Amino acid sequence: MRILKLTIAYDGTRFVGWQRQAQGESIQGHLEDALARFEGSHVTVHGAGRTDAGVHALGQTASVHVTFTHDVGTLTRALNAHLPEEIRILSVEEAAPDFHARFSACSKTYRYRISTAPIADPFDRAFVWHLPERLDVTAMREAAAAVVGTHDFAAFQSVGTATAGTVRTVARSELSDTESLLTYEIAGNGFLRHMVRALVGTLVEIGRGWRPAESMASLLQGSARGRAGATAPPHGLFLVRVDYH
Amino acid sequence: MRILKLTIAYDGTRFVGWQRQAQGESIQGHLEDALARFEGSHVTVHGAGRTDAGVHALGQTASVHVTFTHDVGTLTRALNAHLPEEIRILSVEEAAPDFHARFSACSKTYRYRISTAPIADPFDRAFVWHLPERLDVTAMREAAAAVVGTHDFAAFQSVGTATAGTVRTVARSELSDTESLLTYEIAGNGFLRHMVRALVGTLVEIGRGWRPAESMASLLQGSARGRAGATAPPHGLFLVRVDYH
Repeated sequence: MRILKLTIAYDGTRFVGWQRQAQGESIQGHLEDALARFEGSHVTVHGAGRTDAGVHALGQTASVHVTFTHDVGTLTRALNAHLPEEIRILSVEEAAPDFHARFSACSKTYRYRISTAPIADPFDRAFVWHLPERLDVTAMREAAAAVVGTHDFAAFQSVGTATAGTVRTVARSELSDTESLLTYEIAGNGFLRHMVRALVGTLVEIGRGWRPAESMASLLQGSARGRAGATAPPHGLFLVRVDYH
Repeated sequence: MRILKLTIAYDGTRFVGWQRQAQGESIQGHLEDALARFEGSHVTVHGAGRTDAGVHALGQTASVHVTFTHDVGTLTRALNAHLPEEIRILSVEEAAPDFHARFSACSKTYRYRISTAPIADPFDRAFVWHLPERLDVTAMREAAAAVVGTHDFAAFQSVGTATAGTVRTVARSELSDTESLLTYEIAGNGFLRHMVRALVGTLVEIGRGWRPAESMASLLQGSARGRAGATAPPHGLFLVRVDYH
């Protein structure tokens, strides 16, 4: 039983998302196809986070059960040679037989980037939400801090998602700003579908003065989805890292 | 007589280059089309540097003669609204009646980026030449320094180009390195077609040990094109800035 742990970076711009789908190119699909060349048959790759269409990753992790014996260094180079250049395997490691990228993860960190520059940077346009306006960063930072802790995030789940529970624990939720770039980072043990983007959309509405900073706390008590802000666009979001015990 | 000076940044990836051509999208073509909406008829935009297909700009400048009277702030916003997001006008300024972006320029600065990281960064892939190998940076830096001065750059001109003279003066030619990123910057009063990319290709061959660092000096005495190195790919090159007296 050989389990490999893959660490992967990708520019999600042109993909349908992590998960293999009937139509379109997915990250999972490309990885499975590249690994099948070595395995000689289909393999299933399990990702730590099922990023949506357009979402990027700096350090997604995935696990896969294989029977081939190629060493991890050779495999990293060979897999990259078979993957589109938007997807790069940063490392391949041997993992314990019970390792599963999603179920073994104890923490995931996401980053969301917002640019308030008057004119968008053409080189960064696919990796940042461009909002050329004045945002009340102090209010946004206060609201971001309120997200830390164990809360019912039902208000921040995409409509129509059936999930057993909507309570999650957030260990870190911070907004930092340097010149015209706002960076929101959130780390926690689990995330509902669209949760980070709905939090960011709500923070932006607070930054615009549409809602008070204090409103974040009340939304974290299991409010209906309609009460929180709009979902921020996918291209500002990055899965930064996944941590394991 | 109203002459405007435009400062423009662009991701050149999907364009045929600065210059309007019969086929494909050009930077000049997009700017002329956007300006024609205000002028009501065709206008000709003159760029300081005619960047090739795939070459980027952080601060290209252009001049244009117009008769409309919109103020420069309104114009910047309105032109950007009509341009593809890969092209951004950073500023529009009123210029003297005799200003011409190319003929008035006293210096242009180009930057070329090379990454020697073992694995390419998927977010930077369109903006750097990825060479996952060990290069002798000391030799490259020595050869880069030899480029400063007035020389006959015939060896660094693209084959088949008819140019009256091939003597140019380079004021600065420096290679810097931080971790796995090599950055070459060159400033001068004029550049032959493909000159920067041919210099970079030659520097890389010196870095690989295929040529000694001292060979650069002899190539700067009007050698034939075939004697210098291969032309580096366009996507690592940026027109950084254009200076005027």
